[in-house]
Amino acid sequence: MTDIARLVSEIAQEMRGAAERGTVASYIPPLAAIDPGRFGLCVTLADGSVHLAGDADEPFSIQSVSKVFALTQALGKVGDSLWRRVGREPSGTPFNSIVQLEREEGVPRNPFINAGAIVVCDVNLAGHEPRVSIGELLRFVRHLADDESIAIDEAVARAEQTTGFRNIALANYMKAFGNLTHAPELTLGVYFHQCAIAMSCRQLAAAGRFLMHGGSSQPGAPRVVSAQRARRINALMLTCGHYDASGDFAFRVGLPGKSGVGGGILAIAPGQASIAVWSPGLNANGNSLLGTLALERLTEATGWSIFAA
Amino acid sequence: MTDIARLVSEIAQEMRGAAERGTVASYIPPLAAIDPGRFGLCVTLADGSVHLAGDADEPFSIQSVSKVFALTQALGKVGDSLWRRVGREPSGTPFNSIVQLEREEGVPRNPFINAGAIVVCDVNLAGHEPRVSIGELLRFVRHLADDESIAIDEAVARAEQTTGFRNIALANYMKAFGNLTHAPELTLGVYFHQCAIAMSCRQLAAAGRFLMHGGSSQPGAPRVVSAQRARRINALMLTCGHYDASGDFAFRVGLPGKSGVGGGILAIAPGQASIAVWSPGLNANGNSLLGTLALERLTEATGWSIFAA
Amino acid sequence: MTDIARLVSEIAQEMRGAAERGTVASYIPPLAAIDPGRFGLCVTLADGSVHLAGDADEPFSIQSVSKVFALTQALGKVGDSLWRRVGREPSGTPFNSIVQLEREEGVPRNPFINAGAIVVCDVNLAGHEPRVSIGELLRFVRHLADDESIAIDEAVARAEQTTGFRNIALANYMKAFGNLTHAPELTLGVYFHQCAIAMSCRQLAAAGRFLMHGGSSQPGAPRVVSAQRARRINALMLTCGHYDASGDFAFRVGLPGKSGVGGGILAIAPGQASIAVWSPGLNANGNSLLGTLALERLTEATGWSIFAA
Amino acid sequence: MTDIARLVSEIAQEMRGAAERGTVASYIPPLAAIDPGRFGLCVTLADGSVHLAGDADEPFSIQSVSKVFALTQALGKVGDSLWRRVGREPSGTPFNSIVQLEREEGVPRNPFINAGAIVVCDVNLAGHEPRVSIGELLRFVRHLADDESIAIDEAVARAEQTTGFRNIALANYMKAFGNLTHAPELTLGVYFHQCAIAMSCRQLAAAGRFLMHGGSSQPGAPRVVSAQRARRINALMLTCGHYDASGDFAFRVGLPGKSGVGGGILAIAPGQASIAVWSPGLNANGNSLLGTLALERLTEATGWSIFAA
Repeated sequence: MTDIARLVSEIAQEMRGAAERGTVASYIPPLAAIDPGRFGLCVTLADGSVHLAGDADEPFSIQSVSKVFALTQALGKVGDSLWRRVGREPSGTPFNSIVQLEREEGVPRNPFINAGAIVVCDVNLAGHEPRVSIGELLRFVRHLADDESIAIDEAVARAEQTTGFRNIALANYMKAFGNLTHAPELTLGVYFHQCAIAMSCRQLAAAGRFLMHGGSSQPGAPRVVSAQRARRINALMLTCGHYDASGDFAFRVGLPGKSGVGGGILAIAPGQASIAVWSPGLNANGNSLLGTLALERLTEATGWSIFAA
Repeated sequence: MTDIARLVSEIAQEMRGAAERGTVASYIPPLAAIDPGRFGLCVTLADGSVHLAGDADEPFSIQSVSKVFALTQALGKVGDSLWRRVGREPSGTPFNSIVQLEREEGVPRNPFINAGAIVVCDVNLAGHEPRVSIGELLRFVRHLADDESIAIDEAVARAEQTTGFRNIALANYMKAFGNLTHAPELTLGVYFHQCAIAMSCRQLAAAGRFLMHGGSSQPGAPRVVSAQRARRINALMLTCGHYDASGDFAFRVGLPGKSGVGGGILAIAPGQASIAVWSPGLNANGNSLLGTLALERLTEATGWSIFAA
Repeated sequence: MTDIARLVSEIAQEMRGAAERGTVASYIPPLAAIDPGRFGLCVTLADGSVHLAGDADEPFSIQSVSKVFALTQALGKVGDSLWRRVGREPSGTPFNSIVQLEREEGVPRNPFINAGAIVVCDVNLAGHEPRVSIGELLRFVRHLADDESIAIDEAVARAEQTTGFRNIALANYMKAFGNLTHAPELTLGVYFHQCAIAMSCRQLAAAGRFLMHGGSSQPGAPRVVSAQRARRINALMLTCGHYDASGDFAFRVGLPGKSGVGGGILAIAPGQASIAVWSPGLNANGNSLLGTLALERLTEATGWSIFAA
Repeated sequence: MTDIARLVSEIAQEMRGAAERGTVASYIPPLAAIDPGRFGLCVTLADGSVHLAGDADEPFSIQSVSKVFALTQALGKVGDSLWRRVGREPSGTPFNSIVQLEREEGVPRNPFINAGAIVVCDVNLAGHEPRVSIGELLRFVRHLADDESIAIDEAVARAEQTTGFRNIALANYMKAFGNLTHAPELTLGVYFHQCAIAMSCRQLAAAGRFLMHGGSSQPGAPRVVSAQRARRINALMLTCGHYDASGDFAFRVGLPGKSGVGGGILAIAPGQASIAVWSPGLNANGNSLLGTLALERLTEATGWSIFAA
């Protein structure tokens, strides 16, 4: 334990000094304004101990990491019938690509690319008012993290809505194929707010515990999902969680993970740890540059890898 | 142990009676002639015990499963410089697609699609005579399996060569981009022979042990590869081992695996088992229908999953 | 002349009896309700004589044929600078494909596919109210046809707006690349109304005269466009006027033409005739089945072909 | 006439002094060695008069211009059944793209992209020895041009064969789909030699006369092809003759034309002229930069355009 504490601290130290930090997302002003020098890391171990370093208590825009929670929620609502509307394969194309949708007639490749996440929102909306649906997801995330202070950054949500032409295109395109049940602007309203959830590394690692513990936030606690579903969400994070760099993340880090354009990554070492890292600068694939590097250091040092003997 | 033995036997029993068996590959006569009723399963446990059922001692054409061994060999020769010529991402397209090669200028997406495996052969050829290179790979596989009787099925190799127009296209296309160093026909000679290696489930599971044991065929034995390399090969198998159904295999089976068009699959439960299954009928994605189902049964019953707590 | 009159009448006769009539567009109710048995043909000769047969005075939804008039209008406003925002090449993909837009970063291949026509609308809108822009185009078409009775079918316009998800996707996608200057919904408002212009064959052939006469609606009349511009619009109709069947239309009919999903086609024999045909049933490429056949008959009999000696 | 003579001379003068000359093809040494300063122009009028300027009597490698003659020959052998194996649509992709072949299952989009021309060679080969087939095409071209001195540049043919990996890929890929009847290497032998035909502008313009005169090399002479077939070949040249810049050539020049990577272009003004131009420097689309510009000047000055009144 002490070792983990020291390791977390050393990694934060190393990352703080890194010269090459990637490029902060600039498509909306609230993200563009983030200081690229921020770095946070939180490791929650299976024994419940929490190890923090850097800006681990600073909330940031979790963006696409929210897709993990929205997927979990949708599976709870409709179960495996979800897979009639979304695939489970890596896309082989960038996160916001529309090409695949044309070839595969409006069915997105997986729930972690934008198009797939929009379908997931459409499932979660299920006849509610968008605000009700957003509230429901927010309550779910607060419950997972056991933290009522988690909130949506309204400035981010508004900015997403104003500039999200590409996501509007994706939603309308799927609607044209009959793969949205609500009006695209309603479904997108949910989607844009979901992306704008703000969490700290501490909160994010806490929210991910149910994937470490086979479905429960702590051993013995009531199940959030079944053990099988927890395994399967982990599998989807491994194969699809880093867009068109998922293979590389599996190769280098060796853990299921989900990244967001805000610079956050949630990674799961089943049975061992739930990890959240944040560094706003992105690499060419849109994943946190130092966040990935920090996870690589951490798994090298701890030996955590789902591919290890 | 006894439990595993009974489980292996029960699964083989269930599969023997299955009505829907998929479609046997028909592009070459030696494969088309295989009885779709065949089924073999071998589970080699970490303790060295071997559990067999059905036609587990019958050699079959391992086809693309050979790509795992050829990749291991190439990494031994050139290390990480291999990744300058081959990617590490799922392709999002069928195993023999050429579209991606045009878009990405002759660099195949990963070593487990045909184009990538041809580049791996080109690396392994490295100035030798094709026959020398093939001999080297065969010796390596015999060493891994600890079985000198493993051989190449020359009838299959000849048939591949006669009808392999699509692979000839892939090789020449990459040559046009400068990503083959030898004459395409020489590299292809190695590739076609490699695909024609014949092994039984027992032999295949034995050959896969180094991926279960973190790089050694048995605990304490000299390393075949480093622990890191074993992890990374497992990661590649997970993300890319089943062509455009790799995500589905990870979702359902939850283990790194590599399939071949001959109906074989090698799957690895790190630290626990090396598993080979054979059923010649294929599903729509070109992977063994009953082989996949058998592995799903096996992992459900044993709880083996790299995604489990 | 008399010969042309007889020929027009004979062709209409033959088409009236045709058993195979294609499939009427069904994506909006007002189009789906059209009787597939309708057929109209109008040939306006260079000498000003007009030859009609069948339902040539029945207004129908000209749909994409309107793209010719909108393009002419946009070239009048911004000249060749239009080509910085739209290409001039056949697309090699269906009329509503979005794939090409991703590959070529929001610049549509030509002004006659939907995406290109939306950019043309954006140019024509140029800071006006949508209703003003639509009024301007309508006045232009009335002027070309010398017929003040031409109108927009509001039921069609409303239906397009309600179901046009794919066009909404195209517009937002181009907006994301910065290739729309107005809000997508404003530009689309113009686009959907433009598609809903209703004209008879007689009116359409009259409106096309300026392309037959090198830029003037009749010899000696004030120019609508320069001779060079008339030639170039004809060239674009030839290479791009029938979506992904433009090559086939050039091969079989041999004249510049533009088709619409309402079943209308405008074809130009430079120096000789402006021809409009209407038959609501479409072929697999979305072009009028009998309309194309009628034009083939007509050009075979008259020898009109831009490719003839 | 005198006017044409002067015009041809003036254009050659202007082109001789042009600073920006494009880039000479460099994929084989015999082409790379060509002086970019060369320029030839020949206009053969309908009255039989011939107007030359610059290097119009210098033979150059006609490369893809040969596809016009090979297509004419194949249509003579198998007629419209050819279109079961090759399409008639612009490709929307570069001349040597393989993507379209995968999407459309081995059927090339038109006979003027490389894949389509290889199928045409396969048709012309028709069970003969390659050398016999090549001899037949050469005799046909000599007959069209009425010039027995036309020959194949063997150094070019050999160089094509040595470096033509991309064409080898295309041929094998189509073979995999069953769209080649001969062994790929035999069909390619014909193809590489056909591309290596060397002709001067004078010879090329002479060979193109049958397309100006509706099927006969001169009025009253026996037909090479029917008037309908001549029209249709012109239509194919217009829509597909300049690869993915065919629309632009139609827009700027307004005549059916076929370009080659050797810098030659054959253009036809039906009923008026057969034109050959040669300037080795290519533009970004692989078409002669100054050749296209010279044709633009010529058609502006003469008013020749198939799109004019």
